[in-house]
Amino acid sequence: MHESVLVAADRIRRLEVQGARNVAITAIKAIEKGAKRSKARGKEAFLKELSDAKEVLFASRETEPLMRNAIRHVIHAVEESPEETVKELVDVVSQVSKRFLEGLERSKEKIAAVGSKRVSNNSKVLTHCHSSTVTNLLLRAKQEGKSFEVICTESRPVFQGRITAKEMLDAGIETTLIVDSAVRYFMNEVDLVVVGADAITSEGNVINKIGTSMVALAAKEARTPFYVVSELLKFDPATIHGDYEIIEERSSSEVWDDPPSGLTIRNPAFDVTRREFIHGIICEEGIISPHSISELISRKYPWIFEAT
Amino acid sequence: MHESVLVAADRIRRLEVQGARNVAITAIKAIEKGAKRSKARGKEAFLKELSDAKEVLFASRETEPLMRNAIRHVIHAVEESPEETVKELVDVVSQVSKRFLEGLERSKEKIAAVGSKRVSNNSKVLTHCHSSTVTNLLLRAKQEGKSFEVICTESRPVFQGRITAKEMLDAGIETTLIVDSAVRYFMNEVDLVVVGADAITSEGNVINKIGTSMVALAAKEARTPFYVVSELLKFDPATIHGDYEIIEERSSSEVWDDPPSGLTIRNPAFDVTRREFIHGIICEEGIISPHSISELISRKYPWIFEAT
Amino acid sequence: MHESVLVAADRIRRLEVQGARNVAITAIKAIEKGAKRSKARGKEAFLKELSDAKEVLFASRETEPLMRNAIRHVIHAVEESPEETVKELVDVVSQVSKRFLEGLERSKEKIAAVGSKRVSNNSKVLTHCHSSTVTNLLLRAKQEGKSFEVICTESRPVFQGRITAKEMLDAGIETTLIVDSAVRYFMNEVDLVVVGADAITSEGNVINKIGTSMVALAAKEARTPFYVVSELLKFDPATIHGDYEIIEERSSSEVWDDPPSGLTIRNPAFDVTRREFIHGIICEEGIISPHSISELISRKYPWIFEAT
Amino acid sequence: MHESVLVAADRIRRLEVQGARNVAITAIKAIEKGAKRSKARGKEAFLKELSDAKEVLFASRETEPLMRNAIRHVIHAVEESPEETVKELVDVVSQVSKRFLEGLERSKEKIAAVGSKRVSNNSKVLTHCHSSTVTNLLLRAKQEGKSFEVICTESRPVFQGRITAKEMLDAGIETTLIVDSAVRYFMNEVDLVVVGADAITSEGNVINKIGTSMVALAAKEARTPFYVVSELLKFDPATIHGDYEIIEERSSSEVWDDPPSGLTIRNPAFDVTRREFIHGIICEEGIISPHSISELISRKYPWIFEAT
Amino acid sequence: MHESVLVAADRIRRLEVQGARNVAITAIKAIEKGAKRSKARGKEAFLKELSDAKEVLFASRETEPLMRNAIRHVIHAVEESPEETVKELVDVVSQVSKRFLEGLERSKEKIAAVGSKRVSNNSKVLTHCHSSTVTNLLLRAKQEGKSFEVICTESRPVFQGRITAKEMLDAGIETTLIVDSAVRYFMNEVDLVVVGADAITSEGNVINKIGTSMVALAAKEARTPFYVVSELLKFDPATIHGDYEIIEERSSSEVWDDPPSGLTIRNPAFDVTRREFIHGIICEEGIISPHSISELISRKYPWIFEAT
Amino acid sequence: MHESVLVAADRIRRLEVQGARNVAITAIKAIEKGAKRSKARGKEAFLKELSDAKEVLFASRETEPLMRNAIRHVIHAVEESPEETVKELVDVVSQVSKRFLEGLERSKEKIAAVGSKRVSNNSKVLTHCHSSTVTNLLLRAKQEGKSFEVICTESRPVFQGRITAKEMLDAGIETTLIVDSAVRYFMNEVDLVVVGADAITSEGNVINKIGTSMVALAAKEARTPFYVVSELLKFDPATIHGDYEIIEERSSSEVWDDPPSGLTIRNPAFDVTRREFIHGIICEEGIISPHSISELISRKYPWIFEAT
Repeated sequence: MHESVLVAADRIRRLEVQGARNVAITAIKAIEKGAKRSKARGKEAFLKELSDAKEVLFASRETEPLMRNAIRHVIHAVEESPEETVKELVDVVSQVSKRFLEGLERSKEKIAAVGSKRVSNNSKVLTHCHSSTVTNLLLRAKQEGKSFEVICTESRPVFQGRITAKEMLDAGIETTLIVDSAVRYFMNEVDLVVVGADAITSEGNVINKIGTSMVALAAKEARTPFYVVSELLKFDPATIHGDYEIIEERSSSEVWDDPPSGLTIRNPAFDVTRREFIHGIICEEGIISPHSISELISRKYPWIFEAT
Repeated sequence: MHESVLVAADRIRRLEVQGARNVAITAIKAIEKGAKRSKARGKEAFLKELSDAKEVLFASRETEPLMRNAIRHVIHAVEESPEETVKELVDVVSQVSKRFLEGLERSKEKIAAVGSKRVSNNSKVLTHCHSSTVTNLLLRAKQEGKSFEVICTESRPVFQGRITAKEMLDAGIETTLIVDSAVRYFMNEVDLVVVGADAITSEGNVINKIGTSMVALAAKEARTPFYVVSELLKFDPATIHGDYEIIEERSSSEVWDDPPSGLTIRNPAFDVTRREFIHGIICEEGIISPHSISELISRKYPWIFEAT
Repeated sequence: MHESVLVAADRIRRLEVQGARNVAITAIKAIEKGAKRSKARGKEAFLKELSDAKEVLFASRETEPLMRNAIRHVIHAVEESPEETVKELVDVVSQVSKRFLEGLERSKEKIAAVGSKRVSNNSKVLTHCHSSTVTNLLLRAKQEGKSFEVICTESRPVFQGRITAKEMLDAGIETTLIVDSAVRYFMNEVDLVVVGADAITSEGNVINKIGTSMVALAAKEARTPFYVVSELLKFDPATIHGDYEIIEERSSSEVWDDPPSGLTIRNPAFDVTRREFIHGIICEEGIISPHSISELISRKYPWIFEAT
Repeated sequence: MHESVLVAADRIRRLEVQGARNVAITAIKAIEKGAKRSKARGKEAFLKELSDAKEVLFASRETEPLMRNAIRHVIHAVEESPEETVKELVDVVSQVSKRFLEGLERSKEKIAAVGSKRVSNNSKVLTHCHSSTVTNLLLRAKQEGKSFEVICTESRPVFQGRITAKEMLDAGIETTLIVDSAVRYFMNEVDLVVVGADAITSEGNVINKIGTSMVALAAKEARTPFYVVSELLKFDPATIHGDYEIIEERSSSEVWDDPPSGLTIRNPAFDVTRREFIHGIICEEGIISPHSISELISRKYPWIFEAT
Repeated sequence: MHESVLVAADRIRRLEVQGARNVAITAIKAIEKGAKRSKARGKEAFLKELSDAKEVLFASRETEPLMRNAIRHVIHAVEESPEETVKELVDVVSQVSKRFLEGLERSKEKIAAVGSKRVSNNSKVLTHCHSSTVTNLLLRAKQEGKSFEVICTESRPVFQGRITAKEMLDAGIETTLIVDSAVRYFMNEVDLVVVGADAITSEGNVINKIGTSMVALAAKEARTPFYVVSELLKFDPATIHGDYEIIEERSSSEVWDDPPSGLTIRNPAFDVTRREFIHGIICEEGIISPHSISELISRKYPWIFEAT
Repeated sequence: MHESVLVAADRIRRLEVQGARNVAITAIKAIEKGAKRSKARGKEAFLKELSDAKEVLFASRETEPLMRNAIRHVIHAVEESPEETVKELVDVVSQVSKRFLEGLERSKEKIAAVGSKRVSNNSKVLTHCHSSTVTNLLLRAKQEGKSFEVICTESRPVFQGRITAKEMLDAGIETTLIVDSAVRYFMNEVDLVVVGADAITSEGNVINKIGTSMVALAAKEARTPFYVVSELLKFDPATIHGDYEIIEERSSSEVWDDPPSGLTIRNPAFDVTRREFIHGIICEEGIISPHSISELISRKYPWIFEAT
């Protein structure tokens, strides 16, 4: 395996690379770089190298379906390719990687274009945590001339909501920050909730930052529309095989850095928002009901299921 | 007006005195002290002094029904007293104050005795923020030999949940601390939710620390019993006359001490948990349905409504 | 029986007198007038006359608890009176009637004073049908300087919502009229729903204009506060004895004046809004939970149950 | 203690006496009989005997609030009586017992009179298990000439629903029997659910035959009115002091008489139906909301709380 | 562009043509007529003419997905056709138009055949407004010998429910008409709700006559099945791209022809019934869950998304 | 028609063969046997024989979609086969039947493999009735070393829950049996509900043993995950054409073998659990949302719809 893959996996493991999109880009580029320097003598050997790289990268972080799907896509393309020489297969890797990254970029823009239509003039939009897909959507709505306010939760324990608040302020959007437990207090005046996603399951549920499911619960109670924005490639094919999406528990020091001795601190990073709370998933295909996500994936990205 | 009242009001205003119970004790003691040094020449003048003291103390903080009811109680007793001389009325003030404080103490113990019965052996109890009435109840359950775990929210922005966690640990109770937005994540394994109250309205709703209503919403969704523990004297008679319980907004610096310029921070201290979320109010009368709180107050403490 | 009673009953029957309050006033005045011209020779005979008058007036319209309670109140006062001569009993009737009418007037003002506090500045209030108690409350809120909009349903089949709309406009309140079935369309932007009542049952349910329960359902779905404003004397004591509040069916011509032959038209005048939809009843006692209405009536107006 | 009490307690313990009403009658008669043969020399000694009898009878079965309240009532009357001689106190016991039993009888008739009004002509009424108060109500509705069908659950494990079915058939009422788990299947065609009660708690919840809460859940889902019929004296004052109503677990042989070795059989006799599922409690006071039960008991039977 | 298109667009705009089906038929026939008289010299010019016609017809009314999909279908067929000469392309237009209209007719009959099976004997069916697809279904159920009653809302502001009532009566079906706000009053006795649709969104929501969503809300509360009958071609592909289905606001004079000056009248023609209220959509494919509508459209009518 | 078919149909009719899987196997083997001895002279005649066999077998029991789909599959394969001679078509029948049965076996194992992942260590799983697919899943979880308890309902009227209990005990799983109406009593401590299915409808609803929908209702109320395990081939294509899944009513003697004369006993064998209660269907495709079942069937088993 080329060192580029090991280096990338390590950077991902040590959280030097953050954000699902960046992690996927890093991984796919490392694979491409490694492929270019491959010394494999035939297709089988080449595929073995890719498979090893996959294993290393998959192991670098637990809940990264976008990265995993990116790697699955590249390997699947090689497997399906009629080409047999390593040189040509390297070309396949390059082309597929390039198209994948372009596709990610297009998805982001499509999502912003579609989702910004849901932001009405003179409305209040609430979001939780920080998602570049969400902020991109809101920035686009602003660019389109819409006037609206954004309410951000601070998003304990690591305050990513402050990043969202700063990005909104920088764009000239009127912004309010609240503590996470104040969401229900403000919900009756909110017109739209938009959040990102870390993973989507075969049942149509969304895994996102801890607290998302409580925002959804409060939104449903107040009949406030709740949308998830996400590339479809955050779909996790393991879930269709019964695996629970693993909920990472992070360091207790994020919550309290000098806790009293004997105290247990539980710090789950994500929670599950069930499909019945989600008005729609705004993705590169447009706005869809989460209930049919498996069928949509089967139609658009059948290789996600086929890939090993 | 005697200086003791001014000093007490000032200490309350500057948050030197904290906790509904302590605020009420401070106020009533200041009134008693002032009364003892009164130079009033007759009942009318004496009542005028009391009324002035009341005005000053009421103005010291917004949502303090327990303190207000304490003062109402003393003044009402003086008004109703057949005594006419100031000396005797001062005695009335002393006796009534004493009985009031003793009553508070008995309420606390009665609440602990009643509420601890709801803590089952080998169960998990979740609480939000810090309430001495709640922790007293849990400590009693522990003393009675029950084995149970406590889950505390950290309770942003000022982390009062850490105080609760420490008190629990000190008593040898197994304790877990979580961020506020993780409540729903853990709710399915919780057997009982117990929270305190800052005020109770005539409709049977409870005002408590911001986030309480979200805890209640998550408890209801999971069919987990949700109890409020509170002295009945936290009933706010103004609400029966249509006043909304005023929700104090605290300093933004509690939330973020160096926020970016232009950012609005909203920091409401309390929210409203409606009666339909509350299985029962555990009070000095035992466990009651919140829906009949006004009738109960009319029966037990009619002077709350009569007092001006 | 004096003719005044017969005339009043007839006017009530022929809908010349409308509105629960006006009907009650007409009935009580007729009884007083009749009493003054009584030729009864003793208390027993006098009570017999009152009882006959009661029977005639009760029969004049089906669902008029306010009128019925007014009459019950007068007769109960005579029964309880230590007086024995007809002359003195006539005085009792006069005094009680006078106080009753003054009480009604005070109730109306108290309700407006209490309820107007629930109308926030810059808010939208939705009401259904026409209730003078509701419009009085809104006018008071306007007089107090509050700025708010009112949304009125047209209230088919007899368009009483247009009366409400006119009264609001005349008071300079910004007013919108919608068809009844558009209530849910606008509910998410409504801050408060206020409706009147024709009767209150022992279970705490409210009988009001057909459609009220659908407004309540849509309000609950959107977590919008829903208040009923009503004198407590609209409580119907028959309901505690198991009687259903009778829902009057009115003429089909109100709905369609030249319907095709063979068509059944059902035109119920009222429906039942169950207590769980009602945040509070705003009455002369202030704002109360509907769940304890029977206890409140027992405490304030025990004669309602005692009277035959 | 007189033997009559020991015999009664033993019969109660061995389930020779069944039904809350019969148990209460047996207990109170035994106390009266014992009192008549008392050899006590003074009020104190007499009260001591009563207290001993109480202790023995209370211990005979776990969840029998009606019996317990009957005994409390008698002892309270003796305590409050101005009489001092044992002879006169025995008379007090006799009179109070007699009135108590007469009151029980009147309650039963009042409940039937009130509740039968809720049975509409041409309707379907569903009931669960067997309750003589419920069947009395239905028989009365039949006697009043109403035509209606009754659906009975079989009520596993001991098939009390078959008793209900027989009583209905004997009265000429059209009757259908179903298995317990078919309740939801038929609920959409049911117009009214009526069940009895074993105990009522201070929160307004009702303890009744296992499965009652599932019937209530299915009724609520289908917007079908759900009423509980019960004497108020089934109120359990221990619940206001935090005690959970104890749910008796009965013999596993009721469920399966020759189960495989190692199998755990759980056979709880009752479950809890929370107040929000109950449209009303039909009792000797008429139809009331369960939410104010504690206040009603305080007003009508204050000795329930005062008695030790 | 041929005048036939301009004439058709004008008639549609002036509401001379009503009903989604009739509007679609008118538009498609105008296009065919125009195509036949085309003077275009080649495929590109011919397509330009079609595109111009499309633009004119799309602009004639706001929410007409059936018409729009009809036009999209024809243009897509021309684009995809291997033919190159205008003469042959005109034939394509004719054939495709003919098949489209035949398909519409078959859909209508298929919907009636499928949906009538859901009408049980001796049941009550409630419908809102007037939909020829709904009445066709009910007429078929009648022809099949089923006995059932229909409850029609009057459907303010333009009373289309009267048309439904007349059609039902003419077919010998027992029919009841009610005001719109009486729906909840009657819902507990309704066995089935069936309504039409003006548009279906990518999230699976249905746009239909104002008030439909309130009927759905009341149906859900009473566990009454609620079905939408609609051709799949009412699917609006713009919604997948984030566009909100535009809710037309009609003239205030429909609501009140001489309103007082200053009164705002809001008259939205449609509202949105979310997918969770809909048991099934009865369409030409049979009965489906609305949640998978986008996938179904992708499978059956992929050109809807592809067409520009 | 060969006698093997008649014999099989008769055995199925007389319940000698039980369980959807066994019925399907019996039917398909009978068809294969009959085909092998066919004397048909050509494809048409051969298909006619198959069609006759289908008719006989379909008529043998009402709700057996798995058997029906098995037969549809074989006939469809023959229809689609390019072969023309009877000998070759018999081979087609043999091969298709063999593959079908192998597929069933694989489905069962796939379902167990997928579903067992949802059984967490130290959890409680509740199931209703007896389903070999469910017990297979639980046995696999046990074999994988997981420690968990199973709660079985007894499943009146024929106590299939006892079979489940025995199978669990035999596998060394800790097992508790309860009466059906105790489900809600225990639900708060249950971590997972798993039930089988008799049929799945085009709307995504599941038909299963009477009582399943009440278990689902109680699970939803307590936020307990509720999964259905079923082969996709239990999908009933008739439902997409509007047919209600017919709910078989079984003999009253199952409920009460010596009922009093005049008693109606209703004994529906199944009820409908609507899709919103179902977290997921665990099938051979993995875990899916029930809302998209029709699309999934269209993609995987299109012949189900095509077959006559």
